[in-house]
Amino acid sequence: MRPKIYLFGDSITEDSFAEGGWGASLANHFSRTVDVVLRGYSGYNTRWALKVLEKVFPETQDGDGGVNGAPVAITVFFGANDACLPDRYAAFQHVPLLEYKQNLHSIVSFFRKLWPTTHVVLITPPPIDEEARLRYPYADNPLGLSERTNEAAGEYARACIAVAEECGVPVIDLWTKMQHDGLHLTQSGNGVVFEEVISKLRDKGLSLESTRVDLPLLAHIDPNDPLKSFQ
Amino acid sequence: MRPKIYLFGDSITEDSFAEGGWGASLANHFSRTVDVVLRGYSGYNTRWALKVLEKVFPETQDGDGGVNGAPVAITVFFGANDACLPDRYAAFQHVPLLEYKQNLHSIVSFFRKLWPTTHVVLITPPPIDEEARLRYPYADNPLGLSERTNEAAGEYARACIAVAEECGVPVIDLWTKMQHDGLHLTQSGNGVVFEEVISKLRDKGLSLESTRVDLPLLAHIDPNDPLKSFQ
Repeated sequence: MRPKIYLFGDSITEDSFAEGGWGASLANHFSRTVDVVLRGYSGYNTRWALKVLEKVFPETQDGDGGVNGAPVAITVFFGANDACLPDRYAAFQHVPLLEYKQNLHSIVSFFRKLWPTTHVVLITPPPIDEEARLRYPYADNPLGLSERTNEAAGEYARACIAVAEECGVPVIDLWTKMQHDGLHLTQSGNGVVFEEVISKLRDKGLSLESTRVDLPLLAHIDPNDPLKSFQ
Repeated sequence: MRPKIYLFGDSITEDSFAEGGWGASLANHFSRTVDVVLRGYSGYNTRWALKVLEKVFPETQDGDGGVNGAPVAITVFFGANDACLPDRYAAFQHVPLLEYKQNLHSIVSFFRKLWPTTHVVLITPPPIDEEARLRYPYADNPLGLSERTNEAAGEYARACIAVAEECGVPVIDLWTKMQHDGLHLTQSGNGVVFEEVISKLRDKGLSLESTRVDLPLLAHIDPNDPLKSFQ
């Protein structure tokens, strides 16, 4: 059975198989070695994520590859919704900064207990393009104010980095790396996330070179006796 | 656990998560309802596929969703390599037409026995752009002749359609639908495959409307009491 990588997060994960998306790029990169499994939930914050963790990742996954169905890695990518401002139209998605940190800790602990050998990679919320948010609100916006700000997203990004350091897990600081992108990623933004995930996995020893190719590659099949490869 | 759709085939399947690819589009389409699992093996023909079937799809997949891990559907997309001409440089991939038909029959029978309720969708080989094949050979080509022809691909496509009719399973006739594309699909070719797969699945009752969304959608969460959705 092939190893798996789970992608767990909000809309930036749910949308990651759209054209040029970072999830699809990962699946393509590992097309013969690892299954990339999408668990993205648009609009979700860490408070809601905590409520659904045991449903999304039930304990009994025997026979599903690895120890108790353990994936080799999981990306945890929440915070963009937690960082919605508490006095704007998306306030119902807001989670206070301190609770966000506690929730992230709980999520990391959950995975460490469920899958002790799995690499957990945190990803910070991306920057916010406030003008774009005003142009494309996703609900009535009578105040005419952006429901998110880049500054608030930055606070949550720094909190995410702090949690990663406290837990000793790798973190991708998208907020800093992508000050020219915003919330829903552009093609180049998706490219950054893909490259960063590949890089963090490589740091943990997980790469194309370290994963076993599923069945012989065409280049390794002897043209004079192809069936020899399948005995 | 989410239902699954397997994509089983050659390079046109293995590459289906590249930018704009039909596999990624399927995964994106079903992002909250179905896992799309890639089992593409570049260069493989039906003879080699038959040799590896039991390795790729082992019998015991309990706990992996569905009856004995049965996916809701599987696409079977071989023939482009079988149709390589027997007297050109890719002759080692060639499979005679009659054997191709028999092999496809055996593959369909294998899945019907393993997963009686799974929808098997056959896909014919696509057309061949012979000029492009000459411009981009993938091995030494001392004869200077295309290793595949559109005419031969058409014979294999018609054989695939005949097998589908004999087995009573749906088939996507890519060869006829895509006379302006060739072997490795363009963006619009990928779009055609995606739309055709969606359409055949819909004919079998499998669509976004018929599949259960994994966890509440943001639009269904009450902004005045979000946690109510997670009790």
